[in-house]
Amino acid sequence: MRIEIVAVGTELLLGQIADTNSAWLGENLAANGVASHFHQAVGDNHDRITLALRTALARSDGVIMCGGLGPTQDDITREAIAEVMNVPLDRDPRIVDVIAAFFEKRGRQMTENNARQADVPRGARVIPQAGGTAPGLVCPVGNKVVYAVPGVPYEMAEMFERAILPDLRDRMARAGEEGVIASRVLRTWGASESSLAESLQDRIDALDGAPDVTLAFLASGIEGIKVRITARARTLDEVTALLDEEDAAVRHTIGERLGDIVFGVDDESMEVAVAGRLLGQGLTFGVAESLTGGLIASRLVNVPGASRWFKGGVVAYDTQVKFDVLGVPAGPVVTEPAAGAMAVGAARVTGSDVGLGITGVAGPDEQEGVAPGTVFVGLALPGHPVETRQLRMPGDRERVRQYGAISALDLLRRALDARSA
Amino acid sequence: MRIEIVAVGTELLLGQIADTNSAWLGENLAANGVASHFHQAVGDNHDRITLALRTALARSDGVIMCGGLGPTQDDITREAIAEVMNVPLDRDPRIVDVIAAFFEKRGRQMTENNARQADVPRGARVIPQAGGTAPGLVCPVGNKVVYAVPGVPYEMAEMFERAILPDLRDRMARAGEEGVIASRVLRTWGASESSLAESLQDRIDALDGAPDVTLAFLASGIEGIKVRITARARTLDEVTALLDEEDAAVRHTIGERLGDIVFGVDDESMEVAVAGRLLGQGLTFGVAESLTGGLIASRLVNVPGASRWFKGGVVAYDTQVKFDVLGVPAGPVVTEPAAGAMAVGAARVTGSDVGLGITGVAGPDEQEGVAPGTVFVGLALPGHPVETRQLRMPGDRERVRQYGAISALDLLRRALDARSA
Repeated sequence: MRIEIVAVGTELLLGQIADTNSAWLGENLAANGVASHFHQAVGDNHDRITLALRTALARSDGVIMCGGLGPTQDDITREAIAEVMNVPLDRDPRIVDVIAAFFEKRGRQMTENNARQADVPRGARVIPQAGGTAPGLVCPVGNKVVYAVPGVPYEMAEMFERAILPDLRDRMARAGEEGVIASRVLRTWGASESSLAESLQDRIDALDGAPDVTLAFLASGIEGIKVRITARARTLDEVTALLDEEDAAVRHTIGERLGDIVFGVDDESMEVAVAGRLLGQGLTFGVAESLTGGLIASRLVNVPGASRWFKGGVVAYDTQVKFDVLGVPAGPVVTEPAAGAMAVGAARVTGSDVGLGITGVAGPDEQEGVAPGTVFVGLALPGHPVETRQLRMPGDRERVRQYGAISALDLLRRALDARSA
Repeated sequence: MRIEIVAVGTELLLGQIADTNSAWLGENLAANGVASHFHQAVGDNHDRITLALRTALARSDGVIMCGGLGPTQDDITREAIAEVMNVPLDRDPRIVDVIAAFFEKRGRQMTENNARQADVPRGARVIPQAGGTAPGLVCPVGNKVVYAVPGVPYEMAEMFERAILPDLRDRMARAGEEGVIASRVLRTWGASESSLAESLQDRIDALDGAPDVTLAFLASGIEGIKVRITARARTLDEVTALLDEEDAAVRHTIGERLGDIVFGVDDESMEVAVAGRLLGQGLTFGVAESLTGGLIASRLVNVPGASRWFKGGVVAYDTQVKFDVLGVPAGPVVTEPAAGAMAVGAARVTGSDVGLGITGVAGPDEQEGVAPGTVFVGLALPGHPVETRQLRMPGDRERVRQYGAISALDLLRRALDARSA
């Protein structure tokens, strides 16, 4: 079963609002074993909506149209579907009554525009409205189907769960298609997409004969490379078993070739990985930041319950603040020893068990003769000598800072693991 | 000129990452007078990418393909374009050299997969890579054009500005679609989209008879509401004059109804607005943050030249850090007086002229009996008594923090204006 999503609304094309509905529908279709090979967005224009719908019907088994069911003159999804079905629109008096009651309850008068929401392409089935005024539609087109739902995210999601998904399940059962698809994402830091792909080439080749499991790589901006495992099976238990098995195989292969680069699963960020280790080891934490300017601290406080282990930090952007507040010895401050002294100062000033210091040159100009992209990290862990590291970050000012922050947290993650090993 | 956007990547269909690129491209095409009537998203599958591309070429004058230019086996946009152009791929040795140098600089070896990024459909023009390893492509298809750019947002945006937009302008000039379209965005903080729209209703009505100037509202996430003025004329001078005129009219109308809510133009962020005022008044700045946890500091250091006025800050997440480091008097710390003491402490500890303190409750639970969303800001400006303010922020933990940071900077902006008035 291949379902195409067609999002309707000129505001989507103009980038005035982000189309979160298509992503939500794609995720929920996949989780229910329904493929979605194409998404489209189209503006509030009759000819273009019918063209997008005909295009979708030609290459998919069904279409979910999202948006354009509202009460204004721009809302013409009903008319476009009726044209593609080649049927007239009939006004459904029961829906008119529901809409009129909706307005009466709010002390307002229903307008003629609102009554348009009761127009139903002949032969279509209505999905009664639950939240808003617009009902949804289930429209047969030959042996294919067009669903129409409002663009308001919670109305869309509610109708999907209540009406579209059961109808899709019926259709899949009749077509002899059943099963569950699920994904798991392993998050890595410190390897390039290509070296990760190469290290897993044998796994990818091995899976060529097993169409039920696939691997993909996602380079999602500054947060490292993700490895996505997708599995398909008859039941959720079988899918989970396939994911667990492949998860273990991928971690083993990556670990042998590239070391301990997997830091989290699905939505687990680097700061969540660090938080779990600090909590597990009963340690509190403070940070001293120069070039990252508070970025590390601001990531850490996003972790729920951060107050249990995060004490605070010093943003020592000015050199004098490094000397006066953190106790960095007079002299150059873009060095490994300065990062080490900042780590010790961070722990002392915030009264924490563990301190991290980070200094470096974000660019564009060099500083103290040190090239842009150079970052020094210091770690002060209880019962260990202070550790320092020099790193090289690619990119512009903003990226050096972002990469520097996550790299420093990754060093802390590894040091905490080494400490507890 | 009608340009269709085709976003490539199975992760988009599965909803694993949101397609922000299409919205960004749609907005920037519109701002430059280019229509975009359809967007598509398609997975990493050769047949489906070629089908999506052929569909797009059939109904638009050109296509921007976004994504699928990476180094892995999934990345097949180059192959799909070559098939639609009906030409072979040629490996460009100059691009291979650039990629090899990129890896060499990082002490790594270029792989065969990476070299695939140097494959160019015969007859296409290369957009040299600036940030990443993947070059972009400008591919003529008959009298239409296919542009290919990486899916990494900043690489995409950079290539759009540098190569696609100039090429589109040439094509529009040749097609007799002359004229210049330009936009200017006025950025506001502190008013809702509906109150802003209401305050400007007269302006919008007045423009109904003037099709050369339009107003639109963009609610772009957490950074306030934007008012976009778009003007079209024969020459850049004429467009600039139209923009200036409407800019003045909009500011006047907004100012009369809603006060001093316009803080910047186009890409000027709130921190840029604050930076300009500090520099102009020759003041240095330090910040003490509790609930925002370094967010304000990390925004400030993104302003180029921040070291001229930004000294640093203290992230006082733990109460004891507020007492010991900032000198907040013992007692409750989620109060206006505590925010004031933090402001004074921030100036003292960092050796700055101006100090800002922010404390509050991000949630989900209340703290010291104070409800989530409550934020206290203190400002210490030279020659002025310490000012404090209580604010209420909507939303979850993350939004309270983000809104709190920008609201605090907005208070600072207004206080600096009042000081110099």
